[in-house]
Amino acid sequence: MNRDIKKQLISILGEKACLFAEEDLLTYSYDAGKYRALPQAVALPDKTGQVCEIVKLANKNNLPLVPRGAGTGLTGGAVAAKGGILLSLERMNRILKLDQANRLAVVEPGVINGDLAREAARFGLFYPPDPASVDFSTLGGNIAENAGGMRAVKYGVTKNFVLGLEVVLPTGQIIHTGSKCIKDVVGFSLSELFVGSEGSLGIVTQAILRLLPLPPKQGTLMALFPTMQRAARILPAMARAHVTPSILEFMDHECLKALDAKEDTDLASQAEALLLMEVDGRQEKVASDLASLDRLCRENGASRIEQALKGADRERLWSKRRSLHASLHLIKPRWEEEDISVPVAQLPDMLKSLDQVARDHHLVMANFGHFGDGNIHISFAGHEHDLEKAQALTVRREIYQAAVNLEGRIAAEHGIGLDKTDEISWNLDHSTIEFMAKLKAFLDPNQILNPGKVLPRTEERD
Amino acid sequence: MNRDIKKQLISILGEKACLFAEEDLLTYSYDAGKYRALPQAVALPDKTGQVCEIVKLANKNNLPLVPRGAGTGLTGGAVAAKGGILLSLERMNRILKLDQANRLAVVEPGVINGDLAREAARFGLFYPPDPASVDFSTLGGNIAENAGGMRAVKYGVTKNFVLGLEVVLPTGQIIHTGSKCIKDVVGFSLSELFVGSEGSLGIVTQAILRLLPLPPKQGTLMALFPTMQRAARILPAMARAHVTPSILEFMDHECLKALDAKEDTDLASQAEALLLMEVDGRQEKVASDLASLDRLCRENGASRIEQALKGADRERLWSKRRSLHASLHLIKPRWEEEDISVPVAQLPDMLKSLDQVARDHHLVMANFGHFGDGNIHISFAGHEHDLEKAQALTVRREIYQAAVNLEGRIAAEHGIGLDKTDEISWNLDHSTIEFMAKLKAFLDPNQILNPGKVLPRTEERD
Repeated sequence: MNRDIKKQLISILGEKACLFAEEDLLTYSYDAGKYRALPQAVALPDKTGQVCEIVKLANKNNLPLVPRGAGTGLTGGAVAAKGGILLSLERMNRILKLDQANRLAVVEPGVINGDLAREAARFGLFYPPDPASVDFSTLGGNIAENAGGMRAVKYGVTKNFVLGLEVVLPTGQIIHTGSKCIKDVVGFSLSELFVGSEGSLGIVTQAILRLLPLPPKQGTLMALFPTMQRAARILPAMARAHVTPSILEFMDHECLKALDAKEDTDLASQAEALLLMEVDGRQEKVASDLASLDRLCRENGASRIEQALKGADRERLWSKRRSLHASLHLIKPRWEEEDISVPVAQLPDMLKSLDQVARDHHLVMANFGHFGDGNIHISFAGHEHDLEKAQALTVRREIYQAAVNLEGRIAAEHGIGLDKTDEISWNLDHSTIEFMAKLKAFLDPNQILNPGKVLPRTEERD
Repeated sequence: MNRDIKKQLISILGEKACLFAEEDLLTYSYDAGKYRALPQAVALPDKTGQVCEIVKLANKNNLPLVPRGAGTGLTGGAVAAKGGILLSLERMNRILKLDQANRLAVVEPGVINGDLAREAARFGLFYPPDPASVDFSTLGGNIAENAGGMRAVKYGVTKNFVLGLEVVLPTGQIIHTGSKCIKDVVGFSLSELFVGSEGSLGIVTQAILRLLPLPPKQGTLMALFPTMQRAARILPAMARAHVTPSILEFMDHECLKALDAKEDTDLASQAEALLLMEVDGRQEKVASDLASLDRLCRENGASRIEQALKGADRERLWSKRRSLHASLHLIKPRWEEEDISVPVAQLPDMLKSLDQVARDHHLVMANFGHFGDGNIHISFAGHEHDLEKAQALTVRREIYQAAVNLEGRIAAEHGIGLDKTDEISWNLDHSTIEFMAKLKAFLDPNQILNPGKVLPRTEERD
């Protein structure tokens, strides 16, 4: 990066908010996935005006500009694949307003999701989206990736909680989308265009987020099922019984083996599938929902059911889910990971297809995730050796094909990033991809903002 | 319209699906509001391919093209203000799929909202958005206007139920947004860009709509309050009690007078405000919610409370709301009508401001609407004579100003259409409007699609 650009960056941000030393750049060179790339500079703006200035500087010099929250993404969305300036929003981390009466928060993008959740709870309010990274990831990053999480089955994903945004466009222009009103048809509905755009269409510098009344009680239920197919029968049964759990997670047989290995239990000998559910609401509703779920689990062949209402007891049940990642890594130090979704009733068929892929390629495969919204997190590895890159790619593509065959999606909540740009054509027709590319070029004529992400290389216009 | 274009239209659609006679054009010259304009032709396509052909024809000849559902809108969105071809989607009215297991419907735009609701109910499913026009308006029109309705307080607006769309862009290109999956981050989130765009950014030719399990029971509660301010106290009280009604409507004193005039009751002497609520869900939940609401109403000074669980009893309570429009028109044959929203806790202050406007201008003003989501429908008229156009405009603008002062919006669920294009700058800053206009020009370079709607005239690029 030439000295003149560095000088201009410093004049916008001040010396302390610009990093150029390699040891500093290194700490911003990766996310939680496998991609790494060094930016040429890290910019740490403190206000929207500074973000605008940096965007203009990047345009003038045709420099890539990569917005970043906490870097907890898994598909390279926040990695500066083409160098340039990494724009970390970490210092813009203020909760500007917590409006109890109107049940909304106005936040800067660098606020940690869990920090908003805790602050909201003090006012009896609740921010439902809960990606696994909830205690580290920023709301700006959640918005950029349209983060989901366990509670999506009842409450929806990040998109459903964004009321309005302040966005710095790739040209440096500031726009305001949405409002504090639940019903608002003034102009075009623009917020969602930026939600899930992985920082490639604009930089969110402020967000109005919808909050809900904090449910006073939660109840947790764990059930073991002899087969995944029997576990799956609980989905239509719950709909008929009008019980909507706030969380409905599953683990397959391989996951149970991993838990057994870590905790010296014998879940895997008792069952092939585990469901972990949570219900929330008023005390009497939680009690009645738990009773209904207990009955439905029994009717569908659950061999063992545990309920918990108190914090410590609930925590003990949830610890299985929380330690799953670590447990899997005790069995295999290196897993390939995938994130797909299917229409919810197709989930059992998708799991059957995954079994077939695992058998065909002689893989260890562990599947867990969000039973209630059709989102499966897949971990696979070779039995003896790490998979060759080519074989891992073949397996990935068979997984995508199986999802597509069931009208599923190749990315559910972990983004496209750098990871799946070549494969989005498995889900999107040529005309739609072409339109997305044209829209990107319209918004970002110099293709400076997070280049190389989301869209396939062939559709880039730079 | 020249003979050559007519011939081409006929060759695309067949003779029966093209209307040119003035008596036919007349029936497509208005919506439910005050604007009227004759199109030069009415096109009645039966499939997406025909829509594309017509769009291309309109582009080639620089002809305005106005998509239309059932014409139940109130702000002129479906009126062919600049002539050209009116594209009625009424023949594309098939429910293509009702997927019970995945709780979704695939529909053409001409399906009547109520027809989908009834078909869904046969499968134990529920389509919540319920604009007052539910038995006449089409889902395509609902999508174009982001229709709301009474149930928005619990379930949200049309946008929240659109999973995916097939859209014919203003250039004739077809794209597909979204999918049948709840979690989907493949490419940019484009559906919402078209929802609420009033048919000016694209023509929706198919939609995937999310359905919910049909609540087995409903309960209704009507309560009279001595003042609106006391009625308003129930909002935070309900949040604290964790009761979320599926409907929460209000009527002010003037509305009560109108009901009394029609039905020979004496509501207005007993109270200044009426709340009408509905709760839904399992039987025990409905019972407990009704009991909670009853208690909260009493605690906040309600003078009379009626509950109903059975169909006929509920219908009797709802009839007051349903007959309100007719009742108001018994008092005054001609009302000016407005549709604004404010953040929900600001609703009592907005009603105070409206009282002030009514006093200042010596008006009769009746306010009713959606207490739970901050959306007020305002009807105003002169005491003796119809208002002069200029005075009506002044009143409108004072209403908008009062809403803006409370961070409200000048349009909640009835669109901008032809009616409020000059006023959207009251809610949107110049940069945002300019961006919307550029986006429109990017999508619709010849400005053929529904010209004159949504954006202010000065921002049009034609």
